[in-house]
Amino acid sequence: MSAQGSSLPRGHAERVGVLLVAHGKIGEAFLEAARQILGAVEGVATVCVRAPVAEERVLEEIEKARKEVDQGRGVLILTDMFGGTPCNLSLTLLGDRQVEVLTGLNLAMVLKILASREKVPLAELAQIARQCGMENICLGRAILEQGMSGGGQESSASTRDAERRK
Amino acid sequence: MSAQGSSLPRGHAERVGVLLVAHGKIGEAFLEAARQILGAVEGVATVCVRAPVAEERVLEEIEKARKEVDQGRGVLILTDMFGGTPCNLSLTLLGDRQVEVLTGLNLAMVLKILASREKVPLAELAQIARQCGMENICLGRAILEQGMSGGGQESSASTRDAERRK
Repeated sequence: MSAQGSSLPRGHAERVGVLLVAHGKIGEAFLEAARQILGAVEGVATVCVRAPVAEERVLEEIEKARKEVDQGRGVLILTDMFGGTPCNLSLTLLGDRQVEVLTGLNLAMVLKILASREKVPLAELAQIARQCGMENICLGRAILEQGMSGGGQESSASTRDAERRK
Repeated sequence: MSAQGSSLPRGHAERVGVLLVAHGKIGEAFLEAARQILGAVEGVATVCVRAPVAEERVLEEIEKARKEVDQGRGVLILTDMFGGTPCNLSLTLLGDRQVEVLTGLNLAMVLKILASREKVPLAELAQIARQCGMENICLGRAILEQGMSGGGQESSASTRDAERRK
């Protein structure tokens, strides 16, 4: 598990904390890719879930990481798959209104969250990320055929912009 | 880059090949997670794209990996983000009707593909995976509230089943 950003300098804009809870190296791989694309990324932690899962220990790690990234604006937990162990364990934190859980983690939603988390509150950020993640799932052939007939994929413009900055 | 399954024993059911093309370790992390959940996984290759990207070399890697996993039923290329470099390079292979590209890679779509690729042809598999990947992106709070009011998430039953087998 790794966490950064728990002790930000005074005057830094508050932002929603982000926690990636996923099987094996998935969380770390997404964080590394976000850094490859955006540069420095802070206030994000990862929890790796490996078989055999010691649920109590993983729950402790999730709770510890949640506290580390929470700057008072709550924490968005991203899990790799609805129905998976990382998701099921994360859902137990939803009793706290300062936590939201979004499943089906993909790269577009991570970049969208990192670009938006100083601007919008937790619940709205979760909705925006869900929409962005879903819209980024596209069939390449359909995109090319739309492009040739004059269509486009407006929804993914922000992710293209993000990568252009690298 | 790693590839397996290019020389299957005779009599083995033919299946659609799978290629994960993504930033950094994302592809490898998904393949490792799929193995953690399902056990052995063959006929899947990964191509890692790191900055600075040598596009010509990456394209050669993608083409080589595509050939390795193609067993005559085509190859489904999964990329991490629409608009990203791994996606843009993969889209150049779409001139071949035996290739489909699906963007916005998440774990549910990978497991769905691995469970279905001996049963359905390439184009249909890509559509099914897209649908599964999108349906798996859920807000935890909405699921819990639906559950409490008697609703459910039928769409994700297959991914829950997949993980139960681990």
